[in-house]
Parts: sequence; structure tokens; C-alpha cells
Amino acid sequence: MLRRYFPILTWGAEYSGQTLANDLIAAIIVTVMLIPQSLAYALLAGLPPEVGLYASIAPLVVYAIFGTSRALAVGPVAVASLMTAAAVGQLAETGTPEYLGAAIALAFLSGLMLLAMGFLRLGFLANFLSHPVISGFITASGLLIAASQLKHILGIPSEGETLVEVLGSLASHLGQTNLFTLAIGAGTLAFLFWVRKGLKPALLAIGIGKRPAEVLAKVGPVVAIAATTVAVWHFALNSRGVSIVGDIPRGLPTPTLPPFDPGLWIAIAVPALLISIVGYVETISVAQTLAAKRRQRIDPDQELIALGASNVGSAVSGGFPVTGGFSRSVVNFDAGAETPAAGAFTAIGIALATLFLTPLLFFLPKATLAATIVVAVLSLVDLGALRRTWNYSRPDFVAMAATILLTLTVGVEAGLVAGVGLSVFLHLYRTSKPHVAIVGQVPGTEHFRNVDRHSVVTSPEILSVRVDESLYFPNARFLEDLIADAIADDRPLEHVILVCPAVNSIDASALESLEAINHRLSDAGITFHLSEVKGPVMDRLKRAHFLDDLTGEVHLTQYDAVASIDPDLARRTLATARRHPSAA
Amino acid sequence: MLRRYFPILTWGAEYSGQTLANDLIAAIIVTVMLIPQSLAYALLAGLPPEVGLYASIAPLVVYAIFGTSRALAVGPVAVASLMTAAAVGQLAETGTPEYLGAAIALAFLSGLMLLAMGFLRLGFLANFLSHPVISGFITASGLLIAASQLKHILGIPSEGETLVEVLGSLASHLGQTNLFTLAIGAGTLAFLFWVRKGLKPALLAIGIGKRPAEVLAKVGPVVAIAATTVAVWHFALNSRGVSIVGDIPRGLPTPTLPPFDPGLWIAIAVPALLISIVGYVETISVAQTLAAKRRQRIDPDQELIALGASNVGSAVSGGFPVTGGFSRSVVNFDAGAETPAAGAFTAIGIALATLFLTPLLFFLPKATLAATIVVAVLSLVDLGALRRTWNYSRPDFVAMAATILLTLTVGVEAGLVAGVGLSVFLHLYRTSKPHVAIVGQVPGTEHFRNVDRHSVVTSPEILSVRVDESLYFPNARFLEDLIADAIADDRPLEHVILVCPAVNSIDASALESLEAINHRLSDAGITFHLSEVKGPVMDRLKRAHFLDDLTGEVHLTQYDAVASIDPDLARRTLATARRHPSAA
Repeated sequence: MLRRYFPILTWGAEYSGQTLANDLIAAIIVTVMLIPQSLAYALLAGLPPEVGLYASIAPLVVYAIFGTSRALAVGPVAVASLMTAAAVGQLAETGTPEYLGAAIALAFLSGLMLLAMGFLRLGFLANFLSHPVISGFITASGLLIAASQLKHILGIPSEGETLVEVLGSLASHLGQTNLFTLAIGAGTLAFLFWVRKGLKPALLAIGIGKRPAEVLAKVGPVVAIAATTVAVWHFALNSRGVSIVGDIPRGLPTPTLPPFDPGLWIAIAVPALLISIVGYVETISVAQTLAAKRRQRIDPDQELIALGASNVGSAVSGGFPVTGGFSRSVVNFDAGAETPAAGAFTAIGIALATLFLTPLLFFLPKATLAATIVVAVLSLVDLGALRRTWNYSRPDFVAMAATILLTLTVGVEAGLVAGVGLSVFLHLYRTSKPHVAIVGQVPGTEHFRNVDRHSVVTSPEILSVRVDESLYFPNARFLEDLIADAIADDRPLEHVILVCPAVNSIDASALESLEAINHRLSDAGITFHLSEVKGPVMDRLKRAHFLDDLTGEVHLTQYDAVASIDPDLARRTLATARRHPSAA
Repeated sequence: MLRRYFPILTWGAEYSGQTLANDLIAAIIVTVMLIPQSLAYALLAGLPPEVGLYASIAPLVVYAIFGTSRALAVGPVAVASLMTAAAVGQLAETGTPEYLGAAIALAFLSGLMLLAMGFLRLGFLANFLSHPVISGFITASGLLIAASQLKHILGIPSEGETLVEVLGSLASHLGQTNLFTLAIGAGTLAFLFWVRKGLKPALLAIGIGKRPAEVLAKVGPVVAIAATTVAVWHFALNSRGVSIVGDIPRGLPTPTLPPFDPGLWIAIAVPALLISIVGYVETISVAQTLAAKRRQRIDPDQELIALGASNVGSAVSGGFPVTGGFSRSVVNFDAGAETPAAGAFTAIGIALATLFLTPLLFFLPKATLAATIVVAVLSLVDLGALRRTWNYSRPDFVAMAATILLTLTVGVEAGLVAGVGLSVFLHLYRTSKPHVAIVGQVPGTEHFRNVDRHSVVTSPEILSVRVDESLYFPNARFLEDLIADAIADDRPLEHVILVCPAVNSIDASALESLEAINHRLSDAGITFHLSEVKGPVMDRLKRAHFLDDLTGEVHLTQYDAVASIDPDLARRTLATARRHPSAA
């Protein structure tokens, strides 16, 4: 029990010197990657830079205690930072204590929600976020984030939450572009893109292994930061209008509590839930991918608890919402992290940076941070997914396109909520019209197949309908309509057989429909039968009155059903040589 | 085309003298029944009595033109009247022109919504109202309506929308009970219950046929109305505190338009949608039941148009929302109505009553109308459904109980919305955990069955998982978790086969999960196969890249899959004599 909630007890017991060495190496590499990221994502969230550092200390230690993934790296990530900015931006002005307080409360509430979902085993809630919706949301978020960072790269003011607002505001201030800032921003962008595309091949060419080359390519931002910081300091570019990070308070975060203002908590409830679910979906997806590579197990419910505790840890140490980041976790894994201890060591690295490194970051230009954000988020943008989804499934495409459009034009919360609502709606719409087939007997066999696709034998007195779907409220009425139409046909119908091999469940609405169908058929002088009902479905039907009222019978196989009604026809068809062997 | 939208062209062409005679007889009986009902339901909706009569003229003529059901009787009904009172009561004071205007606007907007749903073929929207929710809602509405009428029976004031409020208000005014009113109300109640339970057997005993006896029992309220009206007039009970209907304007309704106030229309949008859907579900259910008795066809989409046009007709003639009533339609059918013309004749009957009969209703006591309402709605209350649903399906019970509780304690709209939300939620929850079985080969056969239920042969290198559900976003993650657990087991797994005979569709989310599973299994050195994939599912998969990336193959049957991986084992098992013949 204790081990379930504290996975550290399991892996901690086997901890060896070699594991320590591997974890330490991974921690050093992730620390170097995380320092600029934590500053950049704090900037993106509209928060002071030290908040990004604080969110990269306590949450990592907490995750090391509760997490079941060996290589997941939690901390600030781009999408959650954007969602934080969107949620908090509606409640307070950037730079005010209220803004910071709301961001901390958001992390705290999100953490509590994740903990509650973990203890109540409500992880299935994440299912509501269908893949097209989350994929569309992340693409739209990437575009929004990139657009929002252009102001830092151009050195001009810009406002707005939607893509149109942001771009419009940028356009109106374009004349005020600061050329020094632009040089730094554009230069960093060019350098970082080259690092992504050109450095790795270059490193491979000079004989460096594939994994080290990949890891080195990921620390490119550090070089950019060092170079541009030195440039700003040396040429005093901050006096020429280049925005810099400035004074970052030295020292570790002090324990804080979020503001307990009921109005604030109600206002952030929906954003906190959305951040929780989006963060969890990303976390679990990365964790499962990495665990599979080493045949390791992760526990989805415990991951909710670990992520929830990490967010509470972030809040009480003055940080903002955190989640498991994809690229950082992959770097951690590739650098050799074997246990969550690597995360704790990373936390020590960030703590040391907070204590000793912050003065060095005084002249760090915001344009450089913005460029690192742009490069990072553009890799999230996957517009090709629109085409792929269109080809595969139109309803999924509609949900994805609506999510992207609404996220860009109305806002992140509207986009997500509309996407979830739409995918649930389209799902119910699709299942409301299940595939049904009128079936007949394949000559020479006991098999029954679709009359439209096969050469089969049917009787005018018997209608055999196979429904290829479970029967539940979204399609209960469909079945009633189908049978109502069948009754109204002019044929001398005497028996209706519902063939149920694909019916995995029958809910109370469908049961009511079956009862209505039975009574209506009875009123019309038609007998109603079932065939090939699955065991669990039959067990449940026995708990209702339906089987007592059923005018016909429940047959084990469709052949039995037809043979009991019209034995001559069934046997004659069985005795017939198959004319079309392929039809079976 | 014209015949599709105007069913009157179809049945009108075959109209004969005998049909006319039958329709006329039915119309007379329904008119006699409808006069007190229309007054009573107007009272229930908080509207002047003539509004009930107006709602029983134009809508019936309109339905006769557009309706596809031969025997459906539209008009004011109890539940829609309660919903009207609840919706309009929040916007205006009873008795004001604003109250009447809002009720008319509600009928108009509800009509427009139904017309739109009909033309856009959105009838499936009614599916969202699962049977437990509508059944619970009607039970709760019946209780609420009965409680709300007690004030008229006791002759005391009472206010409130929820059961607690209504009963509390009644209790505080109980001392003011008017004994004359109570005598009329309680006497009428006793008489009407006797008519329901005792009159029919008495009529049957004196040799009257079953159907006439049933129809006669349904006109009991008319006797009560005549007797109590005469009593009030003769003893001048209205001067002793007995509330009477009073002056009803004589004459036909004049054409009106609903108030075009955007604020009002927004405020009634949700109630109008709920009234539309509840009304439609009831209408279609009655219509299908009656149509089946004569093997007739109704068109669910055209019924939306007919019901929508009827409501617009009600609104422009000063009426309130109408729908197809259950008991009235049954009386119409039993009395011999053959075509919708019976409804048009009923409309003429009500019009004549409006022109000439209203002075006779001056002394009609409200207590009598309240008693007819109480008797009518108590037949809607079906608390036994709670027990039946509990026995059959717990999630359906939860949705039903929540609908009843919220309708009684918060209000009709809250109850319905919560019920719909909860049933969608529980549906997704259930499908998020589909039934899965690890399967093995039944000795002596090519069949594969659940290892937990049958004595079967499996190989430690092969894991065969059968999922008994379509794969879509609510359960996509479940599959990923399942396979992730399988990988982490210590067994020397080399092949995973997903057995798909019950998979009717795979949406984009599930496709993404299958791709993730394929990659993760590949990372763990395990090959991923599919077997028994249905034709339509396979067709769709071919439009994606998944099949190209699949490390294993897609096999026609599960036996083929195992035989291609481990031919020795498969053939040896096939050659084995069945040890447990029943296991197949």
C-alpha cells in the first residue's frame, strides 16, 4: 500500500552507485536545458523570471517521491504557460501581486483537482479530450504562442489574446521596431533553427555519436543565451532599447500559500480543470512512450497523484502550473536517467542556479528567450494532421478544425471546451446511426450474411436484422424507427428476428425500445425474436421483464431461429450446394 | 416531394364517406374531452382559460395538414404546461401581458426550433434524452404538478417552483382553507378516481362493450364540470370564496405575433429547446405505438415539421406550446379516428365552444379543473420505474434518480439538463472501460475463447487480446494502458494480437492509440498484429499510414494469426481431441 503511493520506496531500495552516476549526468544536461526554458515560460505566462525557476525546484523533488515514470521531467511547459496567461490575464494586470497570486492559486487548484482525480480513480476523464481535439489545440496553441512572442523579438508592445488581436496589435506598432532587439531576436532564431537542422549532421560528421549529438543540439539555447547576454552587456544595448530580464531575486523560494479568495477560485475553476487534463494527457503519453522502451510499468492513477502533488508543491513554493514536458523528458531519457532521482538532482541544479547564477542573467535579452520559445513551439505545430484526419474521418476532422479555429479566434478555453463538446456530440451522432444489415442464409451453410452483399436465401414472412453496435440511448430510437418502417411495408411479415452478435450491451433506454418494439410488433400480429445474444447481455436481460413479455424466443444461433420458424426452408437451403462459394 | 411535406395530399385523395363518419365520431368525443383539459392546462401554465382553447384550434388544423400520424391528437398537455409556467414564471408576473407574450413567444420559438430540426433532419437530437431521464422527468413533473394544484383544491394561496417551496407555502396557509372549495375539489377528485377505477367495470357489467366503456370513462371530467358548475351557480358559492373561471372572452382568436424582444428570446431559448425535445419524444412515441397497431408508417422527420408548424400555429393564434398528448391520442384512436381530419374536426368543435359555450363556463370552479389535472398527472407518476431501473442498470438508475431529485428540488430545466449531461457522462464512462478478454485456442478447433472461462491453449510468446467494443476516444487510452501493462509483465512476450470481431469502428483517437501501441511494442521488441478486422473498419484503416507502419500483419482469422506465428502449436492444438466439448 505504502509502496503504491510512494514509488520511491521501490526504486530507492535498489539504488546503486552506477544508477547515481547515470542520474547525475542526465540531471546536469537537463539543468542546463531547463534554466533558459524556465525563464522563457515564465515570460510567456506573464510572470517574473524567478517564478519559472521556483516552478522547476519543488515540483521535481515531489515528482521524484510520487512518480512512477523513471524518466519523466516535470516543470513549466509552453502550452500550460499559455493557458496560465490566458486564465490569469482575465483576472489581473500583468506584473501585479494579484496576477502572481492568481497564477499560484491556479497551480494549487489544478494540483488539488489532479490529486482528487487520482484518489477517486477518475483518470478516465482525460478520455473526453479526444486525440483530434488535443492535437488541434496544441497546434493552435503553438501558433498563438509564436505570435505572442513576436513582440519581444521586434521590441514593440503588443496586446490581445486571439491571433487576430495579437497580429493586429503587432502591425499597428511595427514602425516602432527596435533594430538592436530585432537583430538579437532574429539572429537567435536563425542560430536555433540551424542548431536543430544543421548542428546534428555536423556533429555526426565529426564522429560524435547519435545520442550525444542529439543532446548537444538540445542545449543550443544555452549558447545563444550566453552570447547575446555578453553582447548586450558589452555594447550596453539595454540603453539602446533592448529589453532585458534585469534583476532576478537571489535565493530559494519561501513557502507561500495561494490567496484564499472564493471569487478567485471560482473564476479559475474551469481553467484549472483544463490545465489539469491537458497536462495529464501529455504527461501520461510521454511517460508510457518512454516506459515502453525499457518494458517498464507506469500507473496512470498514481501519475495523477504525482502530477497533482507536483503542482501543489509548485504553488506552495511560489511557482505556477507544471506538467510533464515532452522534449525535456526525452532529453532526460536519452541522457541516461534511470530513476526519478535524476529529477531531484535537476532540482538541486536549478536551486544552485537560483542562488548563484541569477546576477549573470541580468543582461539576458528577452528577445533571446522569445526566440527559444518560438523555436520550441513551432515543433508543436502539426498542420499536416488536419489533412491526415480529413482523409481518415470527417467527424474527427470537424472536431479538430473547430478546436483550432476557436482557439485562435476566441481563446484557449473556448477552443478546448468547444472541441470536447463537439467530439462528444459527433460521437453520439455517429453511434445514433449504427450499421444494420438485413441478413439471409448462405446456401449450403448455417451462416447468415448481408442480403445486399451476398447471394442468400430469405423468406418473405421473416425479417432478420443484424445490428452491428451496442444498443444504448443514442441509437435506441433508430431501432424503433427501423422496425416501424419494416412493419409498414406491404409484405406479409410474420416474424422479426434481431440478430445480436455485435451487441455488447443494452442499456435501459434500449431495453425500453425493445419492449416498445415487442408490443408494437405484437399489435401488428408479428412475433419478435432475438438470436446470438452474448452471455453478459443475456444475463442482464434476465433481470428485466422483457424476456417474459417477448412474443418470440431467444435463439442461440440465427440458424436455430430460422429453423424453428420455417424448418423446411432452413434445411432446404442448408442442403443446397453453394452456388457462390465466395459468398460464405 | 410535395406529398412528403404535405401528407394531407396522400390521405386526402382516398377520403371517403365512411372515413368522414368515423373521423366525425372521434372528433366529437375528443372535443368533449379536450374542452376541460384545455382550460385546466391553461390554468396550470398560469394563463387565462381562453389561451388553452386557442391552443386547441389552429395547431390541430395545422397538424392535419402536415402530420403523418393518422390518430395523433395535438394540443396542450400537462408536462409542457408545467415547463411553460416554469420558464415564463421567471420572466414576468402571472396575469400580466408580458407573461402571456412570453408564453406565446415560447410556442413560436419552440415551433421554429422543431421546424429547423425537421428540415435539417436533426431528429437524432431527441436521442440525447435517454429513457431513464425522460421517465424520471415525467414522474417528477407529475408530482410537481399535483402539488401545485393543491392550492386550488384547498382554496388557499401558494407559491414556489420546487416541491419543497410549494408544500411549505401550502402548509403555512393551511389555516385559510376554504371548506366549500375543498368540498368541490375533494369531491371531484373522489369522483374522478372512481370513474377511473370503478366506472369501467360497472359499464362492462351492464353489457357495454370494452372500447365504448373506456371512452366513456375518459369523459368523466365533463360530468364533474357540469355538476360542480351548476352547484356553484345554484348555491352562489363564488360569494363564499370559491374561485371560479369567470368571464372567458367569446369569439375566435385574432392573429397575433409574439413580442420580438431579443432579450426575451435569449431568455427562453433553453426552455424552448427543452420543450421541443420533450414534446417531440412524447409525440413520436405515441405516434409510433398507434401506427404499429394498423401497420401504418410515420415519418419522424416530417413529425418534427408538423409539430413545429403546429406550435407556430398556436403562437400566431394566441396560444401556448402544444404537443402530441398520450391519453388524448389513445382516445382519438379508440374512438375510431382514421385520418388527421379528425383533428381538424376537433378544432371546429373547440372553435364552436369558444364561440358559444364560454358563458356556461363562468361558474366553473377552479377546484374542479385542478382535480382533473391531479387525476391526469398522477397516472404519469411511475416510481416503480426507479426500482426496475435499479435492478437492470445502476448507471441508468443514477441518471433517473438525479433527474427526479433535481426536478423536484431545483426546477424542471435543471433536472432535465442535469439528467441529459449525466447520462452522456455515464455512457462515456461505461464505454471507456470495454470488456476485454485474453483468448486462447480451444483444443480440436480453430476457435479462440476467453482464457478465464474456457480450457484453452496459449503460448507464452503470444498475447491475444479480444476487445468487445468499437475503438473510439472514450476507450482509446484504456487500450494503451492495457498493452502497457502487458509489456511490463516479466513473460518473454514476442507477439501481441488484437482480435477485433466486435470492433465496429475505429476513430482518429483510437487510430492514434494503435499507432502509439505499435511504436511502443516495437521499441520493446514485440510485434503487433490484428485479426478478424471487419470489412468497413479495414477499408478505413487503408486510408491511414497505420497499416504501413504495422510491425506485424492483419490476419483474416485469429487461427490464421497464431498459425502464421507458431504453426506447430496451432496445428498440434487443432489435432488434439477436445477434452471439454462444452468449452467450444
